[in-house]
Amino acid sequence: MKLKKITLPEQEIPRRWYNIQADMPNPLNPPLNPSTGKPISPEDLAPIFPLNLIEQEVSTEQYIEIPEEVLEKLLFYRPTPLKRAYNLEKYLGTPAKIYYKDESVSPAGSHKPNTAIAQAYYNKVFGIKKLTTETGAGQWGSALAFACSQFGLECKVYMVRVSYEQKPYRRLMMQAWGGNCIPSPSRETNFGRKILASDPNCPGSLGIAISEAIEEAVEAEDTRYSLGSVLNHVMLHQTIIGLETQKQFAAINEYPDIVIGCVGGGSNFAGLAFPFVRDKIYGKDLRIIGVEPTACPTLTRGQFAYDFGDTAAMTPLLAMHTLGHKFLPPSIHAGGLRYHGISPLVSQLLRDGLLEAEAYDQLKTYEAGVTWARTEGGIPAPETCHAIAASINEALKAKEEAKEKIIVFNYSGHGLLDLPGYASYFEGKLTDFVLPEEGLEKSLAEIKGYPPVK
Amino acid sequence: MKLKKITLPEQEIPRRWYNIQADMPNPLNPPLNPSTGKPISPEDLAPIFPLNLIEQEVSTEQYIEIPEEVLEKLLFYRPTPLKRAYNLEKYLGTPAKIYYKDESVSPAGSHKPNTAIAQAYYNKVFGIKKLTTETGAGQWGSALAFACSQFGLECKVYMVRVSYEQKPYRRLMMQAWGGNCIPSPSRETNFGRKILASDPNCPGSLGIAISEAIEEAVEAEDTRYSLGSVLNHVMLHQTIIGLETQKQFAAINEYPDIVIGCVGGGSNFAGLAFPFVRDKIYGKDLRIIGVEPTACPTLTRGQFAYDFGDTAAMTPLLAMHTLGHKFLPPSIHAGGLRYHGISPLVSQLLRDGLLEAEAYDQLKTYEAGVTWARTEGGIPAPETCHAIAASINEALKAKEEAKEKIIVFNYSGHGLLDLPGYASYFEGKLTDFVLPEEGLEKSLAEIKGYPPVK
Repeated sequence: MKLKKITLPEQEIPRRWYNIQADMPNPLNPPLNPSTGKPISPEDLAPIFPLNLIEQEVSTEQYIEIPEEVLEKLLFYRPTPLKRAYNLEKYLGTPAKIYYKDESVSPAGSHKPNTAIAQAYYNKVFGIKKLTTETGAGQWGSALAFACSQFGLECKVYMVRVSYEQKPYRRLMMQAWGGNCIPSPSRETNFGRKILASDPNCPGSLGIAISEAIEEAVEAEDTRYSLGSVLNHVMLHQTIIGLETQKQFAAINEYPDIVIGCVGGGSNFAGLAFPFVRDKIYGKDLRIIGVEPTACPTLTRGQFAYDFGDTAAMTPLLAMHTLGHKFLPPSIHAGGLRYHGISPLVSQLLRDGLLEAEAYDQLKTYEAGVTWARTEGGIPAPETCHAIAASINEALKAKEEAKEKIIVFNYSGHGLLDLPGYASYFEGKLTDFVLPEEGLEKSLAEIKGYPPVK
Repeated sequence: MKLKKITLPEQEIPRRWYNIQADMPNPLNPPLNPSTGKPISPEDLAPIFPLNLIEQEVSTEQYIEIPEEVLEKLLFYRPTPLKRAYNLEKYLGTPAKIYYKDESVSPAGSHKPNTAIAQAYYNKVFGIKKLTTETGAGQWGSALAFACSQFGLECKVYMVRVSYEQKPYRRLMMQAWGGNCIPSPSRETNFGRKILASDPNCPGSLGIAISEAIEEAVEAEDTRYSLGSVLNHVMLHQTIIGLETQKQFAAINEYPDIVIGCVGGGSNFAGLAFPFVRDKIYGKDLRIIGVEPTACPTLTRGQFAYDFGDTAAMTPLLAMHTLGHKFLPPSIHAGGLRYHGISPLVSQLLRDGLLEAEAYDQLKTYEAGVTWARTEGGIPAPETCHAIAASINEALKAKEEAKEKIIVFNYSGHGLLDLPGYASYFEGKLTDFVLPEEGLEKSLAEIKGYPPVK
């Protein structure tokens, strides 16, 4: 009988997060205040985030202790299993071993609660009563609603109106956890009212929802804003994924040759990858691949530059790979990967040659997802399908080369609430989309003249 | 740090199912051929089920070995964790310890694959190429589609038309696993065509869908029918739940005072309970409670009698608690509990005083489900909410009595695809429903004159 799961006993859950800022060969370009062009100070961010999280954002300590109260909540679903995909290996006829870290087992169905729990905790101990955030498809909003319910915080989620109407299941999850999810643009903020005044039927956008969530946070003393990806402290909280994975590989005396994750804002990828990046910095020989959609090719075709994190240009300027903050990705079902920018940490490490990036077409990724469902059983989220497609690709290369490569990827979420995307795929309604060169030039032209990066 | 999960290493997965027919104080009343009134023979069932499953149906061996090929597929998600609900205990202020066996971790999201995998395997080795079945809400159909995809069998699911239209997510799951799910009544069977001829807009019913699935199975040499509950071999396959649970309690030197499961056809309840019933037969002192809806009170108000398993009166007569096979339960969201009959094994054991039964109102169960989501994190299936409601009730009784009772219940499935039911609850659209006496009398009058039970 072949064993499929490498489980880590609860007692062995990592007690510290890994902070890659301590080890990276080149430091980050600092976030800039767009009006002064100077690095922002903690005080600039204080109305938006609690100071304890701002400290983590800029910390260069190599390890940061996970508070007991956070560990206790993480134990709802952590340590997550590392599983081996024997059936897929057999189906592909590959000598490669394919492992996956199953982050779909959380109550919200993805890796997102890893940081939602931590953020809710730090806000709670800082005296905050309410968190606001935005959500597109609803993965992040539901994770934060869950986390807030655990710490007795109010949670207000501005959900892009078109998603709010088309994707009722995730908003119902938020409601089950006591979260208040409303369609954006809303009448509850100045910015929302302004938008609705000029366009009463506005379908909303992530940029608008961010602006509304920040506006509400900034205006109340006991309210802060929470972001589910991109920022350094989010990447930090997600490193528990990779730290557990390393313990699990150690338990079977193996070590991966290739580490893979899909990339939107970067958090599930960084979570698995960063502890392995550390090993690579200290001499280990392995490949680490971020996988994005060809429709939104931030890492593979974007520019490394200072740009805004949001469409409405309200955030500090971040040095990152970007397609330009006015870039509107075409509608693909992997909503979590439709972001113009990406984590500054992931961007810098790609630039330093520690990471690789690949882009996959939508059809190829759904094909990989269906192959997965029919071999390994689970129905993966459309985002996760990108990591599966790249893993299959590497496993087939290993077959050609007749090498027993060890591959591990982040199974970042299940697709049970994303089944309509699969329906479109089965009905032949989906097409591939490769961003044309002129579209890219146009959106990058918008950010010319921003301060230069080092 | 309090540990929340008692995990069982894969190596310790039970290798044998437990067959309660070997130990029960009184044997089952045999299934009868309705036309002769005599016990049915294996040959009567051969066009419907493969002979190896018919053998299991009537076996009185105490333990039956689980084939290696079945174990290998069960390892996708088994052993499932036994978890402790510390947060709920704290919320209730109870001295009771509340444990739950988390069967929601399977690819299909419920305990159903435990028997779907076994049934697909036995059909496969018997030379069968295709399985047919019926499904209401889709839990069983999706579990069987998953299992068939693992053994290379075709899977045809007749899904009650109204559910097919209102609940697209579960039919999309079946499709992702390569299953062929069609709305019933269909034009693919004589029975379906007959129904549609007289009522082209017929919304369908479980009874009609069963008839269609059996008709297709009986007419083809290489096709058989598969049932997800009620029958003895289904209960047998589910006992792996209770066997694992016993190993997990042994690992922490505890033993439950109260074992709880929700009851529709009986399979998740029996799966957890039967190994504990064995202990009770051999002298252990514990309570074992099946929980059903007041809207469909088979165990608490039904009659123990011979009755048909289906609405169309096509099956053998089974000796069981029944509300009468023409009983139409009101629409409650716990679709898996809307069945007029129940497992003959569960019925006989209730009659023998080894089990207790309780009925809960719909509103009480959703209230329990929301309490659960906001304390323990997961969003439970509406069926599972019945077990939670009863567990809360017992925990509050333990509080009154100041006794440290140990409670364990079967967390039979998650509710991620049942969120519209929660929406109705939040919107105040749900009401309690207690079956009126005259309704019960009327439906039971239908089965007067059937052969008497011993």
